[in-house]
Amino acid sequence: MATLQAIKYNDGQLEILDQLLLPESCTFIPIWNVEDAWAAIREMKVRGAPAIAIVGCLSLAVELRKLAAPETKEELCRLVQEKLDYLVTSRPTAVNMHLAAEACVKLCTQLTDNTSVNVAEAKDDIVKHLEAMLANDIADNRAIGEHGASDIMKKNATKDKLRIMTHCNTGSLATAGYGTALGVIRSLHTANKLDQVYCTETRPYNQGSRLTAFELVYEKIPATLVCDSMAAAAMKQFKIDAVIVGADRVAANGDTANKIGTYQLAVLAKSHDILFYVAAPFSSIDFQIPNGHSIPIEERPHSEMTHTGSIRTAAAGINCWNPGFDVTPAELITGGIITEKGVFKPDQLAPHQ
Amino acid sequence: MATLQAIKYNDGQLEILDQLLLPESCTFIPIWNVEDAWAAIREMKVRGAPAIAIVGCLSLAVELRKLAAPETKEELCRLVQEKLDYLVTSRPTAVNMHLAAEACVKLCTQLTDNTSVNVAEAKDDIVKHLEAMLANDIADNRAIGEHGASDIMKKNATKDKLRIMTHCNTGSLATAGYGTALGVIRSLHTANKLDQVYCTETRPYNQGSRLTAFELVYEKIPATLVCDSMAAAAMKQFKIDAVIVGADRVAANGDTANKIGTYQLAVLAKSHDILFYVAAPFSSIDFQIPNGHSIPIEERPHSEMTHTGSIRTAAAGINCWNPGFDVTPAELITGGIITEKGVFKPDQLAPHQ
Repeated sequence: MATLQAIKYNDGQLEILDQLLLPESCTFIPIWNVEDAWAAIREMKVRGAPAIAIVGCLSLAVELRKLAAPETKEELCRLVQEKLDYLVTSRPTAVNMHLAAEACVKLCTQLTDNTSVNVAEAKDDIVKHLEAMLANDIADNRAIGEHGASDIMKKNATKDKLRIMTHCNTGSLATAGYGTALGVIRSLHTANKLDQVYCTETRPYNQGSRLTAFELVYEKIPATLVCDSMAAAAMKQFKIDAVIVGADRVAANGDTANKIGTYQLAVLAKSHDILFYVAAPFSSIDFQIPNGHSIPIEERPHSEMTHTGSIRTAAAGINCWNPGFDVTPAELITGGIITEKGVFKPDQLAPHQ
Repeated sequence: MATLQAIKYNDGQLEILDQLLLPESCTFIPIWNVEDAWAAIREMKVRGAPAIAIVGCLSLAVELRKLAAPETKEELCRLVQEKLDYLVTSRPTAVNMHLAAEACVKLCTQLTDNTSVNVAEAKDDIVKHLEAMLANDIADNRAIGEHGASDIMKKNATKDKLRIMTHCNTGSLATAGYGTALGVIRSLHTANKLDQVYCTETRPYNQGSRLTAFELVYEKIPATLVCDSMAAAAMKQFKIDAVIVGADRVAANGDTANKIGTYQLAVLAKSHDILFYVAAPFSSIDFQIPNGHSIPIEERPHSEMTHTGSIRTAAAGINCWNPGFDVTPAELITGGIITEKGVFKPDQLAPHQ
């Protein structure tokens, strides 16, 4: 079974998995232009900062491929920039689409300045640049998977098969494909070293039970869903070998902001003598931030905790605390931080930037 | 605001709060006879082993009060035993109804043997015995509340108000009234020593968000709901002073079986230097069981984890692990075990049996 592809791109044809219909239905929808991409991002049919940027850029590639080359390179670049500006407005807080747009505009300027390139060639170069993002991101994720899997196998050399716990969704549904923490799990499975992955439900938005469980079932990776309250009991009962999670932002000292519940798993892993790993592309490391204290934590709507769809699951009038993320101190990341450049101890990140 | 009464009994009139309608609606239904009680128990309108026994016994009291005294005490006792046998079948695994029936049958035999008691007096004595159960259970819970609150206040003498975390539902909706762990919290609130109670959602059956949150809102006790994944972050952020939970069964050495997630909270409390208490009536201590290893853990239906009502919240085909309980080792119960006889270190239970 091939890896789940939530973003399918082939020769100017783009389709994305509609995540709003998961886990009930696995339906792909076509994206014909930047307007389709903008709407899919806005409606959360695609989510996860890397995935958003890639769908946006590929939708522009789809349009450019169909477009007859304009008269001048200036006209081409104006058109490209206009469409990128529009795409950025689909989810203004997601930094990746913004960065991708900047990189593309920079390429446009270079191509305009380069007198040896004509307008048709410039259009082709821009399309190639946009199309390369998908492959590059997947290649980075695969490198993360390989580095992480070898490190875990090395540290558990005497064991035939390993039991891994993970949290939230860090797979094909959050990235361009393959995944970060889930990518490491995929690599272990491919190496025939995975006994079982235990994925947490990840309340209140259920990314674990809805999305990670979907990917694991889809790819027939041996998996068991547990509630967040069962993590310690599972660690003890099933003798978990490692916990691997993703990261939203890693500070220069290795403190890691990630989905709420991550800090708790790190404390529990330490108490049970289990290695705790963070898996993330090197671009998630923010060397401007010395430590986790400076990472702002978003509070999310209480309705996520009080309702499931239209069903009320909490008493009316109860006050809620719903932080979206927490910060895991570097000293609890006992396994290391897995990046496409290798696996590093939290205090050894800086020399590799 | 008076304590929430989920079982209302007054002069032969019995009403219970229909817990199936919580948290959407707070509706009391009348119980006219043992058939009504049997159905309410079977349909889970009332739950919690102590509450089940009390509703069953009170429904018999309701019937006996309306009944003209039979010709003979033998006939009376046959009738009582018949109805008790029937009530026991409503939830065969709940031991409390069984024990209550045994005690009542024993009283019947004593009354039959006692020649100085006539049949009308015997009927009155049985009714009084059944009616006393409610008051006795509430008195025990209030004693647990007082002992627990004084112990916690003594150990936090320098603090004006305390922040307490609790798990699952141990209040008026699980007991005859007042509650065990929630009784301690009620007593702290009455003593004006409670700053805030943090109640966990308690997945997968949501007893915390549905039932405990309902009781706390109802009684205007300052409370915040957190997901089970947020416990450690809340302990750190809000500087929780104590965690108090209930118990399904306590072994002779103090190892405690309770709702899944309890063990995890105990580990997290220890890591955060927070006192961890178990609150339970002395009858929950099973001196026949030397330690927690011998306590069987029930596995519950996977549908509790995969669906909320008719809404699917987990990917189809995912394997689940859904233990109903876990065992917290005695050494993690750093605050003590709070009973109606006082607060004991786990290894000091035996001398008080």
